[in-house]
Amino acid sequence: MTLAPLGAEGSVRVVRTIEDAAAGADFIQESLPEQEVMKIALLARADRVARPDVIIASSTSGLLPSRLQSGLAHPERFVVGHPFNPVYLMPLVEICGGDKTSAATKEGAAAFYRSLGMKPLLVRKEIDGFIADRLMEALWREALWLIHDDVATAAEIDDAIRFGPGLRWAFMGTFLIYRIAGGEPGMRHFMAQFGPTLKWPWTKLMDVPELDDALLEKIVAQSEAQAGNESIRSLERLRDDCLVAVLQGLRGRDFAGGAVLKAYEEKLHERAHAGERAAGADPEGPLRLNGHMTESRYLQVFGLAADALCRRVGIDAAYLAAGFNYYTVETHMMHRREVTGGENIHVTTQILGMDEKRLRLFHSLYRSRDGLLLASGEQMLLHVNTNESRACRLPDDIRARLQRLADSHRGLPLPAAAGRGIAMPSGSG
Amino acid sequence: MTLAPLGAEGSVRVVRTIEDAAAGADFIQESLPEQEVMKIALLARADRVARPDVIIASSTSGLLPSRLQSGLAHPERFVVGHPFNPVYLMPLVEICGGDKTSAATKEGAAAFYRSLGMKPLLVRKEIDGFIADRLMEALWREALWLIHDDVATAAEIDDAIRFGPGLRWAFMGTFLIYRIAGGEPGMRHFMAQFGPTLKWPWTKLMDVPELDDALLEKIVAQSEAQAGNESIRSLERLRDDCLVAVLQGLRGRDFAGGAVLKAYEEKLHERAHAGERAAGADPEGPLRLNGHMTESRYLQVFGLAADALCRRVGIDAAYLAAGFNYYTVETHMMHRREVTGGENIHVTTQILGMDEKRLRLFHSLYRSRDGLLLASGEQMLLHVNTNESRACRLPDDIRARLQRLADSHRGLPLPAAAGRGIAMPSGSG
Repeated sequence: MTLAPLGAEGSVRVVRTIEDAAAGADFIQESLPEQEVMKIALLARADRVARPDVIIASSTSGLLPSRLQSGLAHPERFVVGHPFNPVYLMPLVEICGGDKTSAATKEGAAAFYRSLGMKPLLVRKEIDGFIADRLMEALWREALWLIHDDVATAAEIDDAIRFGPGLRWAFMGTFLIYRIAGGEPGMRHFMAQFGPTLKWPWTKLMDVPELDDALLEKIVAQSEAQAGNESIRSLERLRDDCLVAVLQGLRGRDFAGGAVLKAYEEKLHERAHAGERAAGADPEGPLRLNGHMTESRYLQVFGLAADALCRRVGIDAAYLAAGFNYYTVETHMMHRREVTGGENIHVTTQILGMDEKRLRLFHSLYRSRDGLLLASGEQMLLHVNTNESRACRLPDDIRARLQRLADSHRGLPLPAAAGRGIAMPSGSG
Repeated sequence: MTLAPLGAEGSVRVVRTIEDAAAGADFIQESLPEQEVMKIALLARADRVARPDVIIASSTSGLLPSRLQSGLAHPERFVVGHPFNPVYLMPLVEICGGDKTSAATKEGAAAFYRSLGMKPLLVRKEIDGFIADRLMEALWREALWLIHDDVATAAEIDDAIRFGPGLRWAFMGTFLIYRIAGGEPGMRHFMAQFGPTLKWPWTKLMDVPELDDALLEKIVAQSEAQAGNESIRSLERLRDDCLVAVLQGLRGRDFAGGAVLKAYEEKLHERAHAGERAAGADPEGPLRLNGHMTESRYLQVFGLAADALCRRVGIDAAYLAAGFNYYTVETHMMHRREVTGGENIHVTTQILGMDEKRLRLFHSLYRSRDGLLLASGEQMLLHVNTNESRACRLPDDIRARLQRLADSHRGLPLPAAAGRGIAMPSGSG
């Protein structure tokens, strides 16, 4: 999911009793089966041994917190914190308090889940099934009717979701999607246009299908057919890989689940750097991370530096659209030290020379926190007419701006690696 | 969405009458407002002037095809082809025939949509709302109740979807997700565990909320608050960018919507190459595509070639895990011609020299269809102990294998660019 530094791994201890689990805990998450009587009894036992300031959260998908907290001596520290499968990847956690839950408990639970990279959603009104499960349940009941009435199979229903509305639901809910569909006139227009269809027979409005043996067998058989020979483990890995792909894709847009992931990574970096400062970390010490920058990304960074220089002298989108640009024709790079994941880096760029068509640059890539030189890159760029794919002279205004920069760099020392070619030490080969 | 060659752009012609639009068309897609009487009347007019072999498809979200085709002289060529917003990015299109629709029409429509990179889903039983809209409508009705009862706002309901189940629905539907949640015992176990919750009051089972002015105003106000100051246009762009990010992420997994995109791209490449062969395309001609390979990807390709060489002489995953590897310390690259999107390329790698720690390689990147040299890359690799981050000697077995390859390359001519450094032509600088 992330290359950000995750900190030291914890450990898991398996114990025999609720009391052994709850005594000394800093946060308690109850994830028993959905049986109210069992939950109430065992929560009361945990409550008796846990410190009074410890939050007790329940993973229930829909049981009411006021009932679950009814047997507790300290009901104010009880709250529902309902996560979603797979819990280690899904951002959402619904927070729902009962009559006796304190505001501090709800806030404390939200802060705790947030520190794990999750997205707490406060359910303000206590209701069976909270919010997400009610929506899922409504959709699922309709799906069961479609199977019951032989309209569609499990695989067809799944396809109707994943190739259609499900793709949008990964980042925008129904209301925002409908608002956009309404166009500039917005939600009122959409409701005027589509509201009346609510009266049409587009769902089974009556009750839930009877889950008798016949329907059960039909669902099981269709589910078997859909899964084919894939094991649950391999389906699970596929689900997780796809979730990571979706979340990482959205991180690039800094939106929805991607924004949660991005903010979490920033917090991890901050934490790791604070830890390093506190420990007076040795910059020459062993590597904290496995991840280091891929070879080709060095060139990407140097390319971005060259792009920035070009923009600065007036090579902008309009200039490119007019059919002119600098193309790299030659590059020489030296790697001196690995760039580890999560490290802040910066590049300086020196103009080594230029003429009416050519521009010779020298980039130096530094570790920001101590200025260590990590790599260098020398590049020869050629100014081209991109429509005709041939070299052409720079226009006067851009050339003058570049020349001023080049003149100001003339006094800088020539880097040792400039002009260097690759060679074996003598005697080898 | 894709860098694959999309072929020549078409044009749009705006006409005044249905007859002008339908006469001479090869495929007709009707996208009138959801008013059955208007659709029936205008479809009949299109039917009168279109060639009898032309398919007439309707974009209706849920009107019944048997009724829509009732006024047609050629009802067998009518079918519902229901796409989803934004139609230019979403894969799903539901195909639903009426009583009089021919099998050939359904197959022809499916083939047409597939050729556009879409995913046709055959709705086998004619039903109001088809499949996807029934599922969306069920979810939406529950969402309207949640607003009506002041349980949650539009923004909170959307968050419950997009940070939760919506992330999974982007690639797997409800049934497969529940199957996985059931674990190894599968769907029967899941149904046994969660089936009974269907009887619980987790949704409003009774009817649809009355869409009176009070509820309408509430929804409109909450939707305004959710959208903030963002214009519909900018929300639309955000939606499209996120959809592209999700679909491209899933393409990397070759699953769900990503598999549809990947298959479509392969077809586009095939088509473009077939067109080139038919036209005897001039390899020096103007560029067909805008896209060309990003600078840093050249180095990625050379890095992959170096990796392949290393694997060939026994530097495998176990060897890396033991703490040894070749690291690149120096690279020199020359760009001779652009690599355009969709082009097949290959790399040859020549060993220029080696000793107990160093390996000097020369990569040449060619356009496969005519062997044109596009770029070259020279690299010096250093064998390192990755745990200690320092150079170390190659083990004898790997060195012997590499030496045999190096000896066999000894007779090859030295590439002209080998050992070259970057320099301005004399007189410049």
